[in-house]
Amino acid sequence: MQKKLLNINGVIKTIIADSKSSLADVLRRQLYLTGTKVSCNDGHCGACSVIMDGKLTLSCVTKMERVPDGAEIITIEGIGTPEKMHPIQLAMVKHGAAQCGYCMPGVIVSTKALLDRNPKPTREDVRAWLTQQHNLCRCNGYKPIVDGVMDAAKVLRGEMPREELEFTLPKDGKIWGTNYPRPTAVAKVTGTLDYGQDLGLKLPPETLQLALVQAKVSHANILSIDTTDAEKMPGVFKVVTHKDVKGKNRITGLITFPTNKGDGWDRPILCDTKVYQYGDAIAIVCADTIEQARAAAEKVKVELEELPAYMSAPAAMAEDAIEIHPGTPNIYYEQNIAKGPDTKPIMEKADYVVQDNFYLQRQPHLTIESDIGFAYYDDEGRLTIHSKSIGLYLHLYMIAPGLGVEPDKLRLIQNPAGGTFGYKFSPTMEALLGAACIATQRPVYLEYDYQQHMQYTGKRSPFFMDIKMAADKDGKLLAMESDWSVDHGPYSEFGDLLTLRGAQYMGAGYNIPSIRGKGRTVCTNHAWGSAFRAYGSPQAFLASESLVDELAEKIGMDPLEFRFLNCYRPGSTTPTGQEPEVYPFPEMFEKLRPIYKEALAKAKRESTPEHKKGVGISLGIYGCGIDGVDSAEAWIELNKDGVAVYTTWQDHGQGADMGVLGTAHEALRPLGIKPEQIQLKLNDTANAPNGGPAGGSRSQVVIGNAIKNGCDQLIEAMRKPDGAFRTYDEMVTEKLPLKYVGKWAAAQNSNCDENAQGKPFAVYMYGVFMAEVDVNTHNGKTTVEGMTMMADVGKINNKLVVDGQIYGGIAQGIGLALSEDFEDIQAHSTMLGAGIPYAADIPDKIDIHYIESPRPQGPFGAAGVGELPLTSPHVAVINAIYNATGVRVRHLPAYPERVLEGLKEVKAKITQA
Amino acid sequence: MQKKLLNINGVIKTIIADSKSSLADVLRRQLYLTGTKVSCNDGHCGACSVIMDGKLTLSCVTKMERVPDGAEIITIEGIGTPEKMHPIQLAMVKHGAAQCGYCMPGVIVSTKALLDRNPKPTREDVRAWLTQQHNLCRCNGYKPIVDGVMDAAKVLRGEMPREELEFTLPKDGKIWGTNYPRPTAVAKVTGTLDYGQDLGLKLPPETLQLALVQAKVSHANILSIDTTDAEKMPGVFKVVTHKDVKGKNRITGLITFPTNKGDGWDRPILCDTKVYQYGDAIAIVCADTIEQARAAAEKVKVELEELPAYMSAPAAMAEDAIEIHPGTPNIYYEQNIAKGPDTKPIMEKADYVVQDNFYLQRQPHLTIESDIGFAYYDDEGRLTIHSKSIGLYLHLYMIAPGLGVEPDKLRLIQNPAGGTFGYKFSPTMEALLGAACIATQRPVYLEYDYQQHMQYTGKRSPFFMDIKMAADKDGKLLAMESDWSVDHGPYSEFGDLLTLRGAQYMGAGYNIPSIRGKGRTVCTNHAWGSAFRAYGSPQAFLASESLVDELAEKIGMDPLEFRFLNCYRPGSTTPTGQEPEVYPFPEMFEKLRPIYKEALAKAKRESTPEHKKGVGISLGIYGCGIDGVDSAEAWIELNKDGVAVYTTWQDHGQGADMGVLGTAHEALRPLGIKPEQIQLKLNDTANAPNGGPAGGSRSQVVIGNAIKNGCDQLIEAMRKPDGAFRTYDEMVTEKLPLKYVGKWAAAQNSNCDENAQGKPFAVYMYGVFMAEVDVNTHNGKTTVEGMTMMADVGKINNKLVVDGQIYGGIAQGIGLALSEDFEDIQAHSTMLGAGIPYAADIPDKIDIHYIESPRPQGPFGAAGVGELPLTSPHVAVINAIYNATGVRVRHLPAYPERVLEGLKEVKAKITQA
Repeated sequence: MQKKLLNINGVIKTIIADSKSSLADVLRRQLYLTGTKVSCNDGHCGACSVIMDGKLTLSCVTKMERVPDGAEIITIEGIGTPEKMHPIQLAMVKHGAAQCGYCMPGVIVSTKALLDRNPKPTREDVRAWLTQQHNLCRCNGYKPIVDGVMDAAKVLRGEMPREELEFTLPKDGKIWGTNYPRPTAVAKVTGTLDYGQDLGLKLPPETLQLALVQAKVSHANILSIDTTDAEKMPGVFKVVTHKDVKGKNRITGLITFPTNKGDGWDRPILCDTKVYQYGDAIAIVCADTIEQARAAAEKVKVELEELPAYMSAPAAMAEDAIEIHPGTPNIYYEQNIAKGPDTKPIMEKADYVVQDNFYLQRQPHLTIESDIGFAYYDDEGRLTIHSKSIGLYLHLYMIAPGLGVEPDKLRLIQNPAGGTFGYKFSPTMEALLGAACIATQRPVYLEYDYQQHMQYTGKRSPFFMDIKMAADKDGKLLAMESDWSVDHGPYSEFGDLLTLRGAQYMGAGYNIPSIRGKGRTVCTNHAWGSAFRAYGSPQAFLASESLVDELAEKIGMDPLEFRFLNCYRPGSTTPTGQEPEVYPFPEMFEKLRPIYKEALAKAKRESTPEHKKGVGISLGIYGCGIDGVDSAEAWIELNKDGVAVYTTWQDHGQGADMGVLGTAHEALRPLGIKPEQIQLKLNDTANAPNGGPAGGSRSQVVIGNAIKNGCDQLIEAMRKPDGAFRTYDEMVTEKLPLKYVGKWAAAQNSNCDENAQGKPFAVYMYGVFMAEVDVNTHNGKTTVEGMTMMADVGKINNKLVVDGQIYGGIAQGIGLALSEDFEDIQAHSTMLGAGIPYAADIPDKIDIHYIESPRPQGPFGAAGVGELPLTSPHVAVINAIYNATGVRVRHLPAYPERVLEGLKEVKAKITQA
Repeated sequence: MQKKLLNINGVIKTIIADSKSSLADVLRRQLYLTGTKVSCNDGHCGACSVIMDGKLTLSCVTKMERVPDGAEIITIEGIGTPEKMHPIQLAMVKHGAAQCGYCMPGVIVSTKALLDRNPKPTREDVRAWLTQQHNLCRCNGYKPIVDGVMDAAKVLRGEMPREELEFTLPKDGKIWGTNYPRPTAVAKVTGTLDYGQDLGLKLPPETLQLALVQAKVSHANILSIDTTDAEKMPGVFKVVTHKDVKGKNRITGLITFPTNKGDGWDRPILCDTKVYQYGDAIAIVCADTIEQARAAAEKVKVELEELPAYMSAPAAMAEDAIEIHPGTPNIYYEQNIAKGPDTKPIMEKADYVVQDNFYLQRQPHLTIESDIGFAYYDDEGRLTIHSKSIGLYLHLYMIAPGLGVEPDKLRLIQNPAGGTFGYKFSPTMEALLGAACIATQRPVYLEYDYQQHMQYTGKRSPFFMDIKMAADKDGKLLAMESDWSVDHGPYSEFGDLLTLRGAQYMGAGYNIPSIRGKGRTVCTNHAWGSAFRAYGSPQAFLASESLVDELAEKIGMDPLEFRFLNCYRPGSTTPTGQEPEVYPFPEMFEKLRPIYKEALAKAKRESTPEHKKGVGISLGIYGCGIDGVDSAEAWIELNKDGVAVYTTWQDHGQGADMGVLGTAHEALRPLGIKPEQIQLKLNDTANAPNGGPAGGSRSQVVIGNAIKNGCDQLIEAMRKPDGAFRTYDEMVTEKLPLKYVGKWAAAQNSNCDENAQGKPFAVYMYGVFMAEVDVNTHNGKTTVEGMTMMADVGKINNKLVVDGQIYGGIAQGIGLALSEDFEDIQAHSTMLGAGIPYAADIPDKIDIHYIESPRPQGPFGAAGVGELPLTSPHVAVINAIYNATGVRVRHLPAYPERVLEGLKEVKAKITQA
């Protein structure tokens, strides 16, 4: 232990700390300066950046013994406060850089250090600095950060007035369609927003810290669990096993399709008879400190009989594979698609037929924040679970029977989430927290370290795809055949739905009169499949948008022109036989054409044998909603100060707060309510009605419509005969109701049938991506030099939010194309190992062109946005690699070694020819 | 548990807390907003004041269930920060209101609430508000606070520029003698100074929380201690008993006089064979949380054989009293005084002889902060103990053998102390912390709640005094006889020294040619005697300064004139036969005379039968130092940034930081060093040499001289032949030493002999007090309406510090006179129960007149100050009560019922006459 005097944010503090503790731990756990975030704990992510004696320092890897006595430390709390923000913080707000906001403290501190040494950096200087200093952002594709740094630098140099960093309300008071900053932005850039880990530190002192005993194998029978030694360890209150779980000890998938061969009750809360995947939780040690809990977890003895582990769909489909869930076949769901006439005769006669197979990998979500939650009994006796859940009511019903708790005695609350991108559509630790809280009757806190977070949360499910397309001599698409196998891991939740997504999106975007295909959901022992932004579509589009390029080439058409020819126009139908609600594709391609031609010319001009340049295109579509009759509820309540909106619009970081505020403000405009008069009462099942989960870009459409409906009711009630509006006091005097239940349901939709035919979504999003790449032929490394997107997400609620979603989705698409995977459970368990893109990996040039087709079913014409930018940007990159090099990457990611191998094959072919 | 959103200092925070937790606990223990202090935990002291929804709120007694969802809370952190102080904070700094500073956050928040509702309060409004809101201060007598509030209000009203609240350095750069604010002032008024309780929260997570098992009886044999059940309680790491203590398990008094019948090894660290007083520690439970430790402490079974408890000196001196420490008589030390010829013949012949007896009570120190400390092993393997110790080296040697630790393996560090006033001259919990740290090898933290703090720390020892004086017909004092018994509680440390103080100060101030007397130290079972400001003298002066008034009355002289006639003048000697070093008393009385006459006239004028007014006088003297050859060491080191000063000048709150800075700055003036270039490296035995304990007003004189000596050496070394000074770089280049060991010893002093004759101190402080009182004859309540002090503390180092010491000492004197006691172990265990004065109990009128006689032995002429104002202000009050009513209070405090009783006796006498 060392006693040091440190100057922390200008105040001298006596610090007594273990010399082996990290500075980050001392700042957070001893001084409660929780603005500094810790996630990777390995110096990869930069969230923990502080300035020490003038030098930017990764506090998570800086041991206290390396902190000099008398050192000056500046944390985010010392940069600026909500009442006195630093220009860097203002600039980040202005540019919407704070989405989930988890990286912001580190980024802002890093920027401070950069501008202190270089007051006039170029955009490339900024990108290089962020990369060099390991400042990762998973939400915003870095562009808004760079924009913010450049503006902040200008203000600091006195070249721009500070006021230009502040948002100015338009004269008409309308915030819909503007750059109004999201309500949580200030808290995010000042480090004052408490995420789960921060709240965890601030829980009552009696809170127990949890550590999991997890499987270190992927498939096994459990012979025995012995907690005796662990229970005797210091500070241990209880070791919870399946025996302590009062209910069915299973998490149910809830919405399993009728033809699913499983019953959805396959995921244990705590393993009892079997281990199904690496990381499966077997016991929970509940202790006074996390160190005690972890030490005791090591002492739990688990006797296992290891079984063959099926780590991919083909392995689990093998003849000799045993059933992972005995009684349920490993292929537990099959989904056909059949549209129009039989494809077989068409394929035989068509002028052009191409066929190929593709594999899209197990993309990890790579949120900067790991999975974190806590639970306690509230004063009404409800088991209350705080987590990053983006489906509060959904999860409530998924875990209640397993825990043996009546749903009305269960309460779920979302903590501010440092990114989810869909993994939190699955319950992760909710049931574990519930089980531990029930067993101990004490508040409990659980935090996954980054490795646990990688190994024990869901991933994007890999698709093994075989696809065939036919076109006539004019290049008109005639038919498509497809086959896809989904490696869904051991747990079935939504696995059937995901398989249906293959049918819905393979070939989407084009009018294909004849489709036949079959997909299947396969149970394996790799990471369970959970939702991930654009769920199912990046897989489907990898197949169809790659093959479209192959087909165009075979026909001798330009890929853009082929797409332009075949894309949705009035009279077209989707693969599920639905008529699109709007037809923006032709306009998009026409607008893109000159840009594309210029890009092609530039690529040709700049290509060298060492650096081959290329341009690729892909289109993407995604439906806004859950298939069929999706619905939501929102309460609108008039009060003295304004209007309160109650619902569950869960926030991944995408901007739920702004979604609610923008929609409600627009709906309430007749009343002349100011934005700050609208109170958001969100994401607590005890106080807010069910808005449904935040997935499938449904929230703006479905919840947005419910909010609008409630607001309309309120306005109607407030309207006087003369057209003026009653005040709050008048409403009270006249005893008129103050609270209105807003509802909306996609009543015109229909679920897809056994042939995947139906009208699953009321509103779709449409986009076209163009990628410009540089392929280094020496080492195979691909660099994306530019991305252009034509996007139609309907009328835009908030420009900052929509821009941010698109930048971020595209960045994740680039990672998907080039570097990200979770195949090797050990090597891919860090952000760095899993291939997360740094600033240098994402181009500064990301151009978005909006086509705002008003959606008839969208509130004020809006669609959603979140899924669209990750539907197929990776395919544009893959197609660009082909354009540059002739290498067709079929197995993602396009690691340099895979591209190099392709280059060798191309060279061999050329030599042969 | 409740989840609430609270707006805390302008930031919305999610709070999850037990509804029965106090708001203070949530702010401090969950949010680490440690600016808000918690001490009494009972709403008595106001240290925990916050503003909730605009209303001043005592957060320690506000349960979370009473905090509305959405409430706005303002804590000291929200009032202003070191970089952006609020005018209230600046004004408190300007007026030196922050001494120990522990009350400051509460006072400042309270002031904010006052000025929000009443922007233009009168001084009486401020005093009424502070009283009504329970804002206690134990250091500064409230006057600097009221001054601060008035100035802050002016600035807030725009009637005074903010700059007037800031200190302006004089043109000559000299800070000696100015109002330069003490270095810790800003941290104290902004709540950013971490006291022990705050540091405790910020210790490493592996820190064990300690709870004591304490005796609930005052005297008993221990038959058995059974920790079995306690060891099994949740979170318990170990229960430490005397068996775990590796050394002698005794704390030694170290400086026991040779004629002491005990050996000084009477105080157990953890009780083994006997319980000696209520609260004695029998075991220490070490657990993960304090709640666990306390719960387990209840389970430790202690079997006792109760013995008769001797709760006063007379009880313990009774014939049939058993020896509290078997083998040592209860009267274990006797001290004679014999000066000049025998008194007996003089008494028989003198014109005027008076005799009376007096009792001064067991005054509690009533610090706002309770006793707190922690311990750990540092990286050099030293057992490191942080506490409020004001005698670091002293305590190190007092506890090392008991713990079985070599002194060089023990390190003591002082935490910022929320007041000690001398109780920390005794080790309190240091040895307990050490024992627990050794036994667990873990960091350990111990905090006494206020009741523990009252019941298990030392108190001022009561004196039972019999005194007789003789004067000739002209009023000249001829002789004094005295007898005094000191109730020192069960532990002997410094008890002999205290008894000597009776000899030194009874009759001090006057040239009494003939003195005979005897005092004795008595072992009892009441609270052990520890140092308290003015140690021994308030007892002594109660006797002599009361009797002087009685004698003057008997002679028919005015009390002032009697004192003027007899006070020290050249040729006089003190009771110990020493010649005073200066003779300020005649000047003081002459200056006081007109003020006194006016006060007497005013009292006469304003007296009514219901409100009798009176004026009383007393004089006080105190020696600066520890008897005999007191010495100190200080290191003065030149470095790049300036000069560092290393020593132990421990801070009770009196202003050690300013003492060091002012002295060093004055000594270094030839070098032209700025105050901010002087670094204070204080109060850590691993880094600073022994300056000696901070008691007996010795520091400014003894340590001050050592600092001056070191600075002189440095200046000499830096001086070039031409008279200019070498720079740091030049010193390094010339390889001249940078560090100089400053030393000083009071070499001309001598210890008192067996007749109390000697020259114990090189420097004394002199003062005269005048009290103006109002006695309500209906209820007996005395109100002090004004205090005037003539003070000679030599040349003044820092005016704010000296003023503050005098205001605070006088306030404690008023408490001593009227309300404070620790007799009833239960009823007197709270601040309120023990009679601490609130603002309404201390007059706004406290006038100080300085006579700055330069002290030949004082650095730059300075004496000390801390003890002087508490030597005899209470006697001025007691004499004023007599002056007003004819009631002579002999047994303090002068509770209303005692005064009423006296009034009845007076009335009876008048009726008789």
